[in-house]
Amino acid sequence: MAPAGGSGPKRGILQRLDQGEVVIGDSSFLITLEKRGYVKAGLWTPEAVVEHPDAVRQLHMEFLRAGSNVMQTFTFSASEDNMDSKWEEVNAAACDLAREVAGKGDALVAGGVCQSSMYKYHRDEARIKKLFRLQLEVFARKNVDFLIAEYFEHVEEAVWAVEVLKELSKPVAVTMCIGPEGDMHGVTPGGCAVQLAKAGADIIGVNCRFGPRTSLQTLLLMKQGLRAAGLSPHLMVQPLGFHTPDCGKGGFVDLPEYPFGLEPRVATRWDIQKYAREAYNLGVRYIGGCCGFEPYHIRAISEELAPERGFLPPASEKHESWGSALNMHTKPWIRARARREYWENLLPASGRPFCPSLSRPDV
Amino acid sequence: MAPAGGSGPKRGILQRLDQGEVVIGDSSFLITLEKRGYVKAGLWTPEAVVEHPDAVRQLHMEFLRAGSNVMQTFTFSASEDNMDSKWEEVNAAACDLAREVAGKGDALVAGGVCQSSMYKYHRDEARIKKLFRLQLEVFARKNVDFLIAEYFEHVEEAVWAVEVLKELSKPVAVTMCIGPEGDMHGVTPGGCAVQLAKAGADIIGVNCRFGPRTSLQTLLLMKQGLRAAGLSPHLMVQPLGFHTPDCGKGGFVDLPEYPFGLEPRVATRWDIQKYAREAYNLGVRYIGGCCGFEPYHIRAISEELAPERGFLPPASEKHESWGSALNMHTKPWIRARARREYWENLLPASGRPFCPSLSRPDV
Amino acid sequence: MAPAGGSGPKRGILQRLDQGEVVIGDSSFLITLEKRGYVKAGLWTPEAVVEHPDAVRQLHMEFLRAGSNVMQTFTFSASEDNMDSKWEEVNAAACDLAREVAGKGDALVAGGVCQSSMYKYHRDEARIKKLFRLQLEVFARKNVDFLIAEYFEHVEEAVWAVEVLKELSKPVAVTMCIGPEGDMHGVTPGGCAVQLAKAGADIIGVNCRFGPRTSLQTLLLMKQGLRAAGLSPHLMVQPLGFHTPDCGKGGFVDLPEYPFGLEPRVATRWDIQKYAREAYNLGVRYIGGCCGFEPYHIRAISEELAPERGFLPPASEKHESWGSALNMHTKPWIRARARREYWENLLPASGRPFCPSLSRPDV
Amino acid sequence: MAPAGGSGPKRGILQRLDQGEVVIGDSSFLITLEKRGYVKAGLWTPEAVVEHPDAVRQLHMEFLRAGSNVMQTFTFSASEDNMDSKWEEVNAAACDLAREVAGKGDALVAGGVCQSSMYKYHRDEARIKKLFRLQLEVFARKNVDFLIAEYFEHVEEAVWAVEVLKELSKPVAVTMCIGPEGDMHGVTPGGCAVQLAKAGADIIGVNCRFGPRTSLQTLLLMKQGLRAAGLSPHLMVQPLGFHTPDCGKGGFVDLPEYPFGLEPRVATRWDIQKYAREAYNLGVRYIGGCCGFEPYHIRAISEELAPERGFLPPASEKHESWGSALNMHTKPWIRARARREYWENLLPASGRPFCPSLSRPDV
Repeated sequence: MAPAGGSGPKRGILQRLDQGEVVIGDSSFLITLEKRGYVKAGLWTPEAVVEHPDAVRQLHMEFLRAGSNVMQTFTFSASEDNMDSKWEEVNAAACDLAREVAGKGDALVAGGVCQSSMYKYHRDEARIKKLFRLQLEVFARKNVDFLIAEYFEHVEEAVWAVEVLKELSKPVAVTMCIGPEGDMHGVTPGGCAVQLAKAGADIIGVNCRFGPRTSLQTLLLMKQGLRAAGLSPHLMVQPLGFHTPDCGKGGFVDLPEYPFGLEPRVATRWDIQKYAREAYNLGVRYIGGCCGFEPYHIRAISEELAPERGFLPPASEKHESWGSALNMHTKPWIRARARREYWENLLPASGRPFCPSLSRPDV
Repeated sequence: MAPAGGSGPKRGILQRLDQGEVVIGDSSFLITLEKRGYVKAGLWTPEAVVEHPDAVRQLHMEFLRAGSNVMQTFTFSASEDNMDSKWEEVNAAACDLAREVAGKGDALVAGGVCQSSMYKYHRDEARIKKLFRLQLEVFARKNVDFLIAEYFEHVEEAVWAVEVLKELSKPVAVTMCIGPEGDMHGVTPGGCAVQLAKAGADIIGVNCRFGPRTSLQTLLLMKQGLRAAGLSPHLMVQPLGFHTPDCGKGGFVDLPEYPFGLEPRVATRWDIQKYAREAYNLGVRYIGGCCGFEPYHIRAISEELAPERGFLPPASEKHESWGSALNMHTKPWIRARARREYWENLLPASGRPFCPSLSRPDV
Repeated sequence: MAPAGGSGPKRGILQRLDQGEVVIGDSSFLITLEKRGYVKAGLWTPEAVVEHPDAVRQLHMEFLRAGSNVMQTFTFSASEDNMDSKWEEVNAAACDLAREVAGKGDALVAGGVCQSSMYKYHRDEARIKKLFRLQLEVFARKNVDFLIAEYFEHVEEAVWAVEVLKELSKPVAVTMCIGPEGDMHGVTPGGCAVQLAKAGADIIGVNCRFGPRTSLQTLLLMKQGLRAAGLSPHLMVQPLGFHTPDCGKGGFVDLPEYPFGLEPRVATRWDIQKYAREAYNLGVRYIGGCCGFEPYHIRAISEELAPERGFLPPASEKHESWGSALNMHTKPWIRARARREYWENLLPASGRPFCPSLSRPDV
Repeated sequence: MAPAGGSGPKRGILQRLDQGEVVIGDSSFLITLEKRGYVKAGLWTPEAVVEHPDAVRQLHMEFLRAGSNVMQTFTFSASEDNMDSKWEEVNAAACDLAREVAGKGDALVAGGVCQSSMYKYHRDEARIKKLFRLQLEVFARKNVDFLIAEYFEHVEEAVWAVEVLKELSKPVAVTMCIGPEGDMHGVTPGGCAVQLAKAGADIIGVNCRFGPRTSLQTLLLMKQGLRAAGLSPHLMVQPLGFHTPDCGKGGFVDLPEYPFGLEPRVATRWDIQKYAREAYNLGVRYIGGCCGFEPYHIRAISEELAPERGFLPPASEKHESWGSALNMHTKPWIRARARREYWENLLPASGRPFCPSLSRPDV
């Protein structure tokens, strides 16, 4: 099955959300490409778009096949303060790659900016806005479909980003990387959301730093804050693909396992189906992922919400709902796993009896 | 750094092993491409080589960059009994993809066959040998560098495979998917290894079904059996990238988490460095991985054995030894993780306090 | 060492607390005697005081030796609504046993009442007060040193109990079995404490239902509420000897392990030393335990606070601080455990790899 | 219900076992009395029999009520080499206490000796036999019903003990504290059992050092060894009340949690019912416990084997089969736990998410 309206110009992000449609985001580029050998952990910059465009294109393709409706430009941290002179070439190449793949399916291109590394040393509005504006000029030239400002720890800087991005007259989404305790200056999630809505953001939410469950708790607080202020922007969530019930205010970077020992925390596809359903029930319509979220996790969102959307993504040709393809297995006890109840109730073992279940943030 | 001798014809697999060099294998295609959206779990066949060659090529590239010296044709289960008429096209295309990527680095092409699905119903030597011979004809035409017969539960069928593959006068490697308890007819690992060596296999070992630690236990038993029989073929190990201390004779397929809930069992890169060192110390020189082993796991083998080999793989440009790139991080407590002792001693938490550490095989 | 003032009449509970002394409570009778074979789980009544007085006397003795300054009469649930005609005999016998043992050391006798089983069906102040008054008459006749009203889920009923107990002109302590979420009608811990102080209770706190850590969180909230109201009664804490980070509002009775599978949750003596220190630092001076708290746990409180109190309890003749008696062991690696750092940092394994770390309340 | 034959002289241990009756042993004195405040860990000697006879008598009573048919004298380590001049008084007093309590029910008195502390330094048969003989003289004078030599790491010393104890013409039981790997000189369990049977022991088995499951594995090996040698003494098992799947050859003393952090490993009553059934099915008829085994664990053996024996122990008046007394609880979700399936399938959580499931022996 495929979404209606293959021909004609694509419908915009707000057109979709205003009609109550689910928009599926994409996910983890940095962590995924680090494991594939194209990104350096610790540095976390996206020079792969120019060094190894095939690897980046392939990952975009996998998200597209998994059902993503958004190809976010792989421009995380690609501003002048992190990448020196290379920044412009990287932004431009990232736009081209995203556009190329978006053209092969029902996906929009989103130009992405994130928090500066400067803010924490100099709360210099003019300089920081200039960094955003430089990236924005590339996005304007490449004519992206909408903009995302993501991964902000401080609502003040997020507001600055929104103010800049609004200059282009394209829809603006903004997500903070905060948990239920709020931003680094103590602004509550509800307070952050209200400030961002007042700054003009069309879509508001959280991304990264916390696992699915914690992120939805934060989003609920945002929603309550917005409602109390009489505001109702669209909501967006792009959590980690890791379980992090034990992290503190700073999120997963403070866990001792970050970034090279997070494997046991990776969510299963079934965990993600549950998350997608809960996000939907909470009223979120822009649902994606961040670090640790792999293509099959995006497919799990697409499959969980297929009844509402009316179609499955291309990658579901290679997957059957709730593991039902296992009924072709030769062993009867494996065929017995070809059902929803089995996977929904599985409590997967770690195979690591000498390791604990939880860690203490190492701050 | 790069291996010496970039020009001139590549040195063959036995030339390398005979000189005591480490040969790094490649790893998980089926499980990895399932997560990327190109393989169907339950079916586990490699039609992606014709349907989505870019995705397969990209994965080959990632293993090459990570240091693999072998591009194994993605022909698992691609014999006539599993793939009907498509089998020949798939085998041919897989050879071309492997050769194309192997040409970009210091890697050989290995044509791969695996156990038939027929054996367990009909121990019909003539029919089964014919299946192997058909695949072999493609490998001959495509002129692969050597051959691998892998994933055999029954030593008898593995012997048949070796006998057929030897017809081509290329080196033959053979691996069984058994654990310390031996094959499904009760032949011990040592007994299996001796039979395979007598059948003419040049390289003998295990692959799949069991995690690194268990696989090395099996290999030790094979080595002891071979030594007792006065035989000394080269040894090879390609274990799962999952921890499976709790599996029984049948291996990970019998664990309740197979195949859609294995995430918490995925090995870290540090687990794999430890495995690589232990394999090396055991005298194994062909060291790779199987299901669950991703490109960064192969890179971990390359990095662990870099002192012996004298060079690092290309993907190590994007990785620094023992996480040392973290010393660029802005947070001091994360910089403190930029050292070997930290990662070597980390006991990573699962983030899943409601889940157990071990499962009981579900047979 | 022994506390000063062996001769002369004993100093009263308030005399001690007013001077800032630590008073060590006693602990688990029901759960401990259930394991010894004298109490029936599910029924949880103290008929053992008449049926098996030796067993009850022995447990009192163990607490006394461990350092308890209070022999609480074993009269839990021994009111007319639970024990029919037997109630009076049980209350009287319990007083005699407590007095007999208290006479052998520096301990006071506390007459104890707990919530009625009637309240949840009939909030009938007169009838419930009558139940308390009947027990009080026995305590008056037996001339206990002070009174404890404990294990109240509803602050209203606790207030009634305090009002009745105050009629006797003896000091009154009162503890609720609530967690940080407050009582069953939603009154916060601070709110409960203020009501109880206003009703005239001299000592206020929590007992049972929650582990040491959670109980101290509740007590902190009580303290803050009292302080905000300008009140400063003495504080008291008698938590479970079980770890219960996973319980909900109802406490440990809702955990699936209650009451016959709680073993893996039992606190070590080191956990209890930590608890005693934290309680002390929070300003609590009446420190004891409840279900699951065994004599050696009480000894751990006595040992942790020995520097402040200036003496060790009799049972410390059979224990050396921080396991130092292990330095007599013949095995050097066991001698190496004879030190504080070892036990303070131990993360004890459960020996149960197929079990999870946490449960979900089963309500 | 009570066992038949209350009047008349008690039937002897061999009379019972020869008729296929189940004999229930007693259990943990040292560890249990350490927690009650009467034994010093590290020293592990039984001077409490003279210092605090009430405490020892009470524990005997609890085991009797729980169904023990044997009151073993609390004389562990009470030989001349450990207790100097006190040894004789302790042995005599222990006999009197055991006899006093045995007289209140259907229990026999067993005089107990254990391995010397001398053996590991001087394998001096004469001196060591003399130690045993001195204790034996007290047992002779006090006319115990039979003898137990227990806790031997070296079969040679156990044989010496049997040879001495046989001098008294009373039945002799002997247990070693070994696991499946055998004794400290490498004699297999089967080999040990054969030597002990040939030395004249009437009852042979294992005690202490390993949990129920491991102890039964050892016993199976003993049984196989005996059978192969054509011998068939009675079998006896008295394991730890702790789960120790992770201990090595030396048993639980080598685990990092020994002796002050073993709490999370304590078996539930349901674990013990399972153990009792498995022991029975293995053909063992003398079934008891050792360190960590508390009175309610002995009761669990009595309850599990009540169908075979035809009666329940006195302490079952305070316990209903499989938790059925919970059906009187006021909360419906707790009443729902009043059934066998619930407790049999419970996987109890540790409440310790920061702790691992298993430890590595610390040797």
